[in-house]
Amino acid sequence: MSIKPVSERTISRMPKYLHYLNNLKENGVDRVSSASIAEALGTTASQVRQDLSAFGSYGAQGYGYSIDRLSAEIKGILGIDTSYRVAIIGIGSLGHALLEHLEFEKYGYHVVAGFDIDCDLIGTEINHVPIYSMDDLADVMKQQEIDICVLTVSRGSAKQVASYLERLGVSAIWNFTNEKLEIGESVAVENIDLIDSLFVLTYYMNRNIEERLLLSQRQRRRVNI
Amino acid sequence: MSIKPVSERTISRMPKYLHYLNNLKENGVDRVSSASIAEALGTTASQVRQDLSAFGSYGAQGYGYSIDRLSAEIKGILGIDTSYRVAIIGIGSLGHALLEHLEFEKYGYHVVAGFDIDCDLIGTEINHVPIYSMDDLADVMKQQEIDICVLTVSRGSAKQVASYLERLGVSAIWNFTNEKLEIGESVAVENIDLIDSLFVLTYYMNRNIEERLLLSQRQRRRVNI
Repeated sequence: MSIKPVSERTISRMPKYLHYLNNLKENGVDRVSSASIAEALGTTASQVRQDLSAFGSYGAQGYGYSIDRLSAEIKGILGIDTSYRVAIIGIGSLGHALLEHLEFEKYGYHVVAGFDIDCDLIGTEINHVPIYSMDDLADVMKQQEIDICVLTVSRGSAKQVASYLERLGVSAIWNFTNEKLEIGESVAVENIDLIDSLFVLTYYMNRNIEERLLLSQRQRRRVNI
Repeated sequence: MSIKPVSERTISRMPKYLHYLNNLKENGVDRVSSASIAEALGTTASQVRQDLSAFGSYGAQGYGYSIDRLSAEIKGILGIDTSYRVAIIGIGSLGHALLEHLEFEKYGYHVVAGFDIDCDLIGTEINHVPIYSMDDLADVMKQQEIDICVLTVSRGSAKQVASYLERLGVSAIWNFTNEKLEIGESVAVENIDLIDSLFVLTYYMNRNIEERLLLSQRQRRRVNI
């Protein structure tokens, strides 16, 4: 497969397509049109066709897409048609929750190691995953052939740990620390900013409340007239 | 304040501005230029000026923005200059982790209630937050004046619970279920799709690996010539 530049936004829509296709498949559906996909995902049919054709998937005019084939293609594009080995760095409450989040196993992400500096945790197992000392990071990463590191350390040590992971040659960091990591482009990074998402939710909630207030004021004024 | 339509992307950048400003403030900085903000956040100065002017914030030519004033304005825009009361619906491992995630308190989000159907949990407290039965949802929501519901129920019951919350008049749902909620626009919804983010990370990791492979093949070929 040749490497074509595909936009980040197109990539970010791929998992949504996949969830929808899985859903249809579970309901016994075999084929789907770009219009149906668009409706379910709140976008346009031409956007769907453009997204999928960027990876060489074309539906047949009037017949739409084969769900099996399209699912397989999207999985191939994302690289989730194989399995990966994952380590969680920092076993606080969030690290703990991720260790117990079995959903990841279902998608082929096998959590095989956890790391922490807490002596009470080191040497124990959480949900059958052994917890190692941060001092053993280099050795265990190599032995266990880790593909993806989940960064759930405290914010203060995020940059330092990420730089160390980069020096160890880690390929991917899933960053939950809300800290901007200063590492090279050879490491793929995705940020989960929980608090940022909560801020955005708050904005839209307040905008809705404000709109309702304005509307009721206008209605009240109208009644007064 | 009048309601102007501001794009989702502009809103989603506001928390990043705020984190950066907080960071500068902690380091004793008072003023900042749009160029510095742009550099730190990986965007352009004109994008920053455009984003901030959408809310009526203008820097002084040659002097930049006052950090205190800009922070206060962004907090006002997002509505995080006040505090909110939060309930967590579904106390599995993720709900549990969020209950213990004290960071939210720091930003004025007070978690005051948890809900579950598990009899072993109902009546207990986790991190000083009482856990109620789902049967008491309507009563407790009213008594406790909940602003924001965090939806961490299992995927299968997500839609049903969300519709119920809508009927109860909830203003905002923070949705961790990876299920598309079918509710009206009067309820603000933000989705946290953990598995989708992991898929996107996997794509970029594989692209990097593929690029390195191609590069080393090319170098090998060159050596052979």
